[in-house]
Amino acid sequence: MRNLTLLTDLYQLTMGQGYFKEGRHEELAVFDIFFRPNRLITYSVAAGMEQAAEYLENLHFDEEDLAYLRSLGIFTEDFLAYLRDLRFTGDVFAVREGEIVFPYEPILTVRAPMIQAQLVETALLTFINHQTLIASKASKICKAAAGDVVMEFGLRRAQGADAGIYGARAAVIGGCASTSNVYAGKLFHVPVAGTMAHSWVMNFPSELDAFRAYAESFPDGCLLLVDTYDTLRSGVPHAIEVFKELRAKGHEPKGIRLDSGDLAYLSKEARKMLDKAGFPDTIICASGDLDEYSIRSLKEQGAKIDSWGVGTKLITSADLPALGGVYKLAAVYENGKEIPKIKLSDTTEKITNPSFKELYRIYDRDTDKAIADYITRADETVDEDKPLVLFHPVDTWKRMTVTNFRVRKLRETLISHGKRVGEPKPLSEISAYRAEEFARFWEEYTRQDMPHIYKVDLSPALYTLKREMVEKCGKGES
Amino acid sequence: MRNLTLLTDLYQLTMGQGYFKEGRHEELAVFDIFFRPNRLITYSVAAGMEQAAEYLENLHFDEEDLAYLRSLGIFTEDFLAYLRDLRFTGDVFAVREGEIVFPYEPILTVRAPMIQAQLVETALLTFINHQTLIASKASKICKAAAGDVVMEFGLRRAQGADAGIYGARAAVIGGCASTSNVYAGKLFHVPVAGTMAHSWVMNFPSELDAFRAYAESFPDGCLLLVDTYDTLRSGVPHAIEVFKELRAKGHEPKGIRLDSGDLAYLSKEARKMLDKAGFPDTIICASGDLDEYSIRSLKEQGAKIDSWGVGTKLITSADLPALGGVYKLAAVYENGKEIPKIKLSDTTEKITNPSFKELYRIYDRDTDKAIADYITRADETVDEDKPLVLFHPVDTWKRMTVTNFRVRKLRETLISHGKRVGEPKPLSEISAYRAEEFARFWEEYTRQDMPHIYKVDLSPALYTLKREMVEKCGKGES
Repeated sequence: MRNLTLLTDLYQLTMGQGYFKEGRHEELAVFDIFFRPNRLITYSVAAGMEQAAEYLENLHFDEEDLAYLRSLGIFTEDFLAYLRDLRFTGDVFAVREGEIVFPYEPILTVRAPMIQAQLVETALLTFINHQTLIASKASKICKAAAGDVVMEFGLRRAQGADAGIYGARAAVIGGCASTSNVYAGKLFHVPVAGTMAHSWVMNFPSELDAFRAYAESFPDGCLLLVDTYDTLRSGVPHAIEVFKELRAKGHEPKGIRLDSGDLAYLSKEARKMLDKAGFPDTIICASGDLDEYSIRSLKEQGAKIDSWGVGTKLITSADLPALGGVYKLAAVYENGKEIPKIKLSDTTEKITNPSFKELYRIYDRDTDKAIADYITRADETVDEDKPLVLFHPVDTWKRMTVTNFRVRKLRETLISHGKRVGEPKPLSEISAYRAEEFARFWEEYTRQDMPHIYKVDLSPALYTLKREMVEKCGKGES
Repeated sequence: MRNLTLLTDLYQLTMGQGYFKEGRHEELAVFDIFFRPNRLITYSVAAGMEQAAEYLENLHFDEEDLAYLRSLGIFTEDFLAYLRDLRFTGDVFAVREGEIVFPYEPILTVRAPMIQAQLVETALLTFINHQTLIASKASKICKAAAGDVVMEFGLRRAQGADAGIYGARAAVIGGCASTSNVYAGKLFHVPVAGTMAHSWVMNFPSELDAFRAYAESFPDGCLLLVDTYDTLRSGVPHAIEVFKELRAKGHEPKGIRLDSGDLAYLSKEARKMLDKAGFPDTIICASGDLDEYSIRSLKEQGAKIDSWGVGTKLITSADLPALGGVYKLAAVYENGKEIPKIKLSDTTEKITNPSFKELYRIYDRDTDKAIADYITRADETVDEDKPLVLFHPVDTWKRMTVTNFRVRKLRETLISHGKRVGEPKPLSEISAYRAEEFARFWEEYTRQDMPHIYKVDLSPALYTLKREMVEKCGKGES
């Protein structure tokens, strides 16, 4: 395992030395990770917690890390000696991977000695911002594909090896069935997919020779790329010829792939040709610059596409390449007593939620659909037997009373006293969980166009604390 | 070093087995990496070749890789046995990192046994697409900053650890002076930068206490973040107070950082306050969602900003998060004889340039400015003593004759028979080279708005070969 302890911003270490010098480095602090809404972020699929846990459990400075820090000439020997023995000893509370989450929710909270909590900020944000971003994009793309198989094909366009590897992982959490990335397949035990490239076809005297050679090597599950020269006049007829030869030898072909051209038209024509030739069970797989918008459009046009290979726009989340999750101080402790902290801003929505908190989801008992998420102070409980008044955290006159509901705590303990709680879950289980929970949201919240905004409300106690702190801070008493 | 041999698309391995079965896997093939133009890609800064070389030198399947491939149930034992001994034995020709490059140019060419050339496609594209993308974005941002210091601050928003680490590397190649990323600082010996976050300020009873504590820890080079509460009424006055205390103790402060608000207005006001207080030599550093467009706009507004911390939009290349470089078959060899290969497309610009090629840059001897790049077949030479006729590769009637020029071969041998040629260069040297070569391009080619398109022309021999092949292929004789 790579030691990523230095995967941090320099200021985490300079602040660390500052706290160390002040003798405050072991004071407990609470930081929350959350993200803010924008046009494209109305819901997200949480991911990256597993890498966060791995990283925290493995946190330690090697001798060469310390030698490097010493070489910078800004750290004192006593601080470097302290770092040598530093391990992550704090607690981490987080939603499980695959959970459907919303802006402003503390999806992960670190409670740890100040110096540790600060040091790990950058890497935790990197892992969770990245994987949550890609899992969310995959979820949108798979929703547009409406149950068709979606394959992740983006490695060559990923922003480096990890973006390909962990991006493939996140894509599967978000709903993809497989990846072309063999490394990710091995690491995470997810199905791998792929057959041939244009170079294969170009490398034989003729397209027919190329198809025949491929069918000979892979007589079962044979899937042929038909757009190298001319899809309908050359590619599909040649594929059909080879499919007939395969069938004569007792093998059923899998289908064809289209990677360019007008996918709506070509897929409809190819479907007719395949059906007419006696291959109605073959599939048509499409690839080439696809995303949730083009897939939806192709479906609206009646394209006969059964499975989708999605590359660049998924693996980079091309229309929104960063989630922008932040890590904000929520509380410190003095003599064991919590001191809530708040970050002000001229923009009301940017003011943070103070104190150590808990996150709940409220479901209607009749429909089993999610009604709202509910953020409370950590010591509050939600009584299912009493009516619950929900109100908008800014426009507080918007309110509703819910009854006949069930409530679920969304966060679990991921790390306790520096040790991981429980075992990592297989990706198949995480993805199945995501699908199950996603079904508990009305379509109105997850649709592509102008989705309805899901409620994320504050408890009266948290709201009151926040309001009082804002008023105090406004007078410069933060 | 991580073994990234499995960092490939599954189809590279299925095709590999296909070639193996055909007995053609050791036939030599030539593949080129190039990228296509779009609105945002008119020039690029090449990067990622170093990681490509490392990867190729280290290419080998571990036993656990082979066990995984066996578990997929699609590979034969004789093929797996072949993979066990597979190493990269081919040649790689590439432009050096930091080179200014243009669409359609073969910036890297692999000449290797078919199976190897195919296997390495995906990882080479991943490294070179990613780092070239970020180096290019950095170059644009640094150009807008017009000589000011630009710092890379994006790790927390990077698409995974490698995107942060190699993105920081690429950013420095493209012109950034430093990174906040400590891991990258250690790995690549680049300067690291950073001081304090809002959480530091929130963590003290008052802003003044926070500044004082920081100045005590870092009396030299003290840089204070002044926008946590109120920049002009609280942050800057408190910073000035602490700067005076520092000076009284014999230390000169470094300056302040603004991370929010109207950076044009705030920087101008802060500058006045600092100057008036006797600190005209302090710097003002700005950060917060910056890129080449906002930096240019701030400069036009007369913002008094001396250094720029650029995060999300640089590390993700937010307006264009993938370069889209491709890897295309250019030739194969039969009995030692080159057989050029071409990929057709309905879009003329998408037709590839066939054959094993060479890439030259033509400079005017009087101005030392670049006139055009020139792609030839590999065995051609360019005679500086004869007039050279350049013509547009599509609109061939557009032509010019150049005299009094010098010519430079843009590509070097990176790998010869599987072994790296020469030593990796320090990033400082690569970045200096980039700056030197960038200065050889007229501003018209690199400006932000509607840059003039730099000429990338084909030699008559290459043009003729291409035209003949297109005509033959058009008749289905590819």
